Amino acid sequence: MKLQPKNKKMLLQAALGTIPSDMVLTNGKVVNVFTGEVLNADVYIYDGFISHVEYDQVGKDLKANKIVDVKGQYVIPGLIDAHVHIESSMMTPRNFAKAVIPHGTTTVITDPHEIANVWGVEGVRYMHEDSENLPMRQLIDIPSCVPAVPGKENAGADFLAKEIAELAGLERVIGLAEVMDFLAVIYGEDRMMEILKVAEDHGLYLQGHAPFVTGRMLSAYLCGGPRTDHESRDTKETETKYRYGMNIDMRDSSLCKNVPEIMAAMKNYRYYDTLCLCTDDRESDDLLNEGHINEVIRVAIKNGMDPIDAIKCSTINTAREIRMDHLGAIAPGYVADIVVLDDLTEMKPSQVYYGGQLVAEDGHLVVEIEELVLPLETRNSIHVKELTVDDFRLQAPIDSGMVKVNVMCFDDLYSSATKVMVEELPVKDGYLDLSNDSDLKFVAVVNRYDKDNIALHVVRGFGSDHGAVASTVSHDSHNLTVVYDTAVNALVAANRLKEVGGGMCAVEDGQILHTLELPIGGLLSPKPVEELSKDAACMKEANRKLGLREMENPMMRIVTLALPVIPEAKMSDLGLINVFTKEMIPLYVD
Amino acid sequence: MKLQPKNKKMLLQAALGTIPSDMVLTNGKVVNVFTGEVLNADVYIYDGFISHVEYDQVGKDLKANKIVDVKGQYVIPGLIDAHVHIESSMMTPRNFAKAVIPHGTTTVITDPHEIANVWGVEGVRYMHEDSENLPMRQLIDIPSCVPAVPGKENAGADFLAKEIAELAGLERVIGLAEVMDFLAVIYGEDRMMEILKVAEDHGLYLQGHAPFVTGRMLSAYLCGGPRTDHESRDTKETETKYRYGMNIDMRDSSLCKNVPEIMAAMKNYRYYDTLCLCTDDRESDDLLNEGHINEVIRVAIKNGMDPIDAIKCSTINTAREIRMDHLGAIAPGYVADIVVLDDLTEMKPSQVYYGGQLVAEDGHLVVEIEELVLPLETRNSIHVKELTVDDFRLQAPIDSGMVKVNVMCFDDLYSSATKVMVEELPVKDGYLDLSNDSDLKFVAVVNRYDKDNIALHVVRGFGSDHGAVASTVSHDSHNLTVVYDTAVNALVAANRLKEVGGGMCAVEDGQILHTLELPIGGLLSPKPVEELSKDAACMKEANRKLGLREMENPMMRIVTLALPVIPEAKMSDLGLINVFTKEMIPLYVD
Repeated sequence: MKLQPKNKKMLLQAALGTIPSDMVLTNGKVVNVFTGEVLNADVYIYDGFISHVEYDQVGKDLKANKIVDVKGQYVIPGLIDAHVHIESSMMTPRNFAKAVIPHGTTTVITDPHEIANVWGVEGVRYMHEDSENLPMRQLIDIPSCVPAVPGKENAGADFLAKEIAELAGLERVIGLAEVMDFLAVIYGEDRMMEILKVAEDHGLYLQGHAPFVTGRMLSAYLCGGPRTDHESRDTKETETKYRYGMNIDMRDSSLCKNVPEIMAAMKNYRYYDTLCLCTDDRESDDLLNEGHINEVIRVAIKNGMDPIDAIKCSTINTAREIRMDHLGAIAPGYVADIVVLDDLTEMKPSQVYYGGQLVAEDGHLVVEIEELVLPLETRNSIHVKELTVDDFRLQAPIDSGMVKVNVMCFDDLYSSATKVMVEELPVKDGYLDLSNDSDLKFVAVVNRYDKDNIALHVVRGFGSDHGAVASTVSHDSHNLTVVYDTAVNALVAANRLKEVGGGMCAVEDGQILHTLELPIGGLLSPKPVEELSKDAACMKEANRKLGLREMENPMMRIVTLALPVIPEAKMSDLGLINVFTKEMIPLYVD
Repeated sequence: MKLQPKNKKMLLQAALGTIPSDMVLTNGKVVNVFTGEVLNADVYIYDGFISHVEYDQVGKDLKANKIVDVKGQYVIPGLIDAHVHIESSMMTPRNFAKAVIPHGTTTVITDPHEIANVWGVEGVRYMHEDSENLPMRQLIDIPSCVPAVPGKENAGADFLAKEIAELAGLERVIGLAEVMDFLAVIYGEDRMMEILKVAEDHGLYLQGHAPFVTGRMLSAYLCGGPRTDHESRDTKETETKYRYGMNIDMRDSSLCKNVPEIMAAMKNYRYYDTLCLCTDDRESDDLLNEGHINEVIRVAIKNGMDPIDAIKCSTINTAREIRMDHLGAIAPGYVADIVVLDDLTEMKPSQVYYGGQLVAEDGHLVVEIEELVLPLETRNSIHVKELTVDDFRLQAPIDSGMVKVNVMCFDDLYSSATKVMVEELPVKDGYLDLSNDSDLKFVAVVNRYDKDNIALHVVRGFGSDHGAVASTVSHDSHNLTVVYDTAVNALVAANRLKEVGGGMCAVEDGQILHTLELPIGGLLSPKPVEELSKDAACMKEANRKLGLREMENPMMRIVTLALPVIPEAKMSDLGLINVFTKEMIPLYVD
């Protein structure tokens, strides 16, 4: 995608001043991301582009139809999120736009990975269509790993090179999204090599994802093609990646707060060219109450980053990362995405301009976003067989006594990393009995794509002490996942989610505490951010009631339980998987 | 053009160490252009690419077929010249390669603008063909302004959008070269708009050229598309361009020494992301005796630049400017263009690797470059009509007395800037007589493309005090240009150049002092750098004998006399042109 004026000749005339520009922002302090200066300047806008920036004769001879006095405030480029899954906000692209624009975000690079796992190519097309004609720019990277671990899980789609090629034709598609099956890259698996090749052939940039990968493994990953990463979690990892020329997309998501560790590495470096900011996954209440990229900037500043550097990292650096010219700076020929604010550390926009149009003021959207109901938004996506209590009971190889079980154990209450530990567990009447240990729970992953399979296992350290929590938001295949004490509670929760077309649900003693309805693909709500936040708050409260009190966000605990790319073991609808070897781990030890 | 390994899967294996790399450079200090660090590391090379960089276990477990101990020397990326006209060296691309590789240059972005003005599309194809399979990378930008000033001069070719589109298909073509007709851009002339559009449509980057352009004019130029510039001459100009987001290609050519002024501006800036180095025009003896980009780095360091910054500016920054991935860094997945040297300020390479192959050592090429004689190299390009003494005599509108003449006056002996001054000059026997003022000379521009026109004028401050100097190197149309006292001397010089197929010639009292033969397109010699330098030294000496003593390079004085883009007035084969208005200036004032 290229950012080009509708009529270049007219833009040239506006630049020269032979015709008036549409508007000029006068009396502002421009943050110049090329020089690092903050300078008084007039910023002229014509046809959505910056036609001229006057640094010398400021405030004089203003050749514009509209003069906006920004009264000494800062004028910075519109903010860019280097990597975000809009689905994580549980909002539609249009409602997401409403939520982030007032925070100064004018461009996001989004990976519609979640909805692609549910609806395939159609899902990506939906995200593209729903984000058309918005007062912000939602650029799309094509999901590269659908499903996350081919052959070991069933998602709603399977993306091969053919699907990538098809989607590369969409107007706002610019990259191949986070290539998270890093082992497939490193070991040169055919399927992945073909996907990378077709993406490169179509001129897409390759976004990476390589958590904990360093040394020769990282060298191989980079030789494979992807050159960015938003998964740096510690200082040493950041150091290696940055030295290897990997762009660091510094993440501050609702769950992963990586800024302090990354900044600890970055402080030693001379150059910040290849550092960008991203949110990855941000929930509706965080977007509403804390902010978006402006919040990441605040966090970066708190961790020692200079505000000018932080602005550069979240504007021109990101534009370069995604190979997009004319984006990310206050300079002639650049798109007029502009944020006006009075404090560079508070980062609260008083005005946001997108393509030269005022779109938000003092935290509020000031343009209409058309309401749409696209066909996919009313189509059911939860195709689960008729369920019974027996589907959720775990039969043992013996009738009573003790059996050795491969238990999936969370490392702690905050991260989604796990280990597999062998435990001896009691059997009662031919079924596994966990009732004596409230830290142990059953887990069921129910295929929701018209296949009958249900995988059952045992989990320790999940965090709930009773009841059932269920979710159709369950990265990345988004099968219906339930963590529960009794089969009855599980059945109530699962059936409720079938009934409402997906979402999240908490059940206690057979009673539904709360349901967060996400009928669009079982992932998204049609509600805007204010309503959805309230709904989510109720959902969290219900989860806390079931024991999920420690983690900052109890609602999200379940959603990475079936994500078989986070070490060391995760569930799928086929069972428990060793993330490193991609081998299935049996429930019972022989 | 994309830099890709022949077999990615094998490269991945070499990265992992499951197969040995071809080579490892051990015991080196790597200059890391991402972090700005200098770190001990082992650099592994496989199939022309860097397969792995080991920063932790340095010197241990070296998995490579060949181990090269660089004995504590620095290991830096191969140097890149952001903008050069190979023709200015008067060497063929192959001989140019021989001259620059030992200096550590592994990539140049070349603009075959001169030969394009002579031979058109065929000329560009010749430069492309002659630079195939070299132990360096000659990337080509398509000349954008052939001729420099359409309609006001006759060159050997005329490039419209069609020619640009045709040449965009060549393998090593990556950009549109310096768009020097900046007025055509700024005022949105159709011909130029079409050229820019076709270049953008073909994915070419747009290289700029905007001497003295600032303010709204510069805004318009940038809105037009080009985003780089190597013409910054003073600090204020640099400041505006850099603030406007224009990449500065800091030039140190044989003629233009812009580093001090540019560095005076750059010292105030926080970021050096968009600063690159270039040579633009470097003659054979400078290449032989001083160096190439390594010399520009030395000059930059002398002017206050940190050596690490200078290396970054001449490697990864340039790779980014030209949108070339996998180039310009010592990092996994990058091409193995590497320079080994023991001092970062002396910048004398002890070893140069191109695509992992050792190509130069201690200042000498260590690989064979195949000798070629391509068809164009033996074809005559000087198509000038039969000349007589009368062709060079300047008829006056009166028979005797004084006439008012628009004289083209050089500002000084060092720059090619000129003014037009009206002078009263004597007429004798119906012809203009300059014999009483040795600072005045006749100038003739003789069309050499089968057209009969010859333009005659008067020049002041050229620098010669007697005799004739002539050249078919005469930017940009390269018509046969002669500056002379008597018509006889002019005729001898012109006929000599016709006879040898072009070049440069100095004549005194009807006798040839020296001829520098440039039979390839009247621009290039088939000789290698050592021989050509000697030849050029004789040419300079001959020019000095004619009075051209003050300027550093007397040979180059004539070559920009007919370049109607350098203000304020220049010659073409049609007469004297006002560079700003593009109007013809009559010889005689009414």
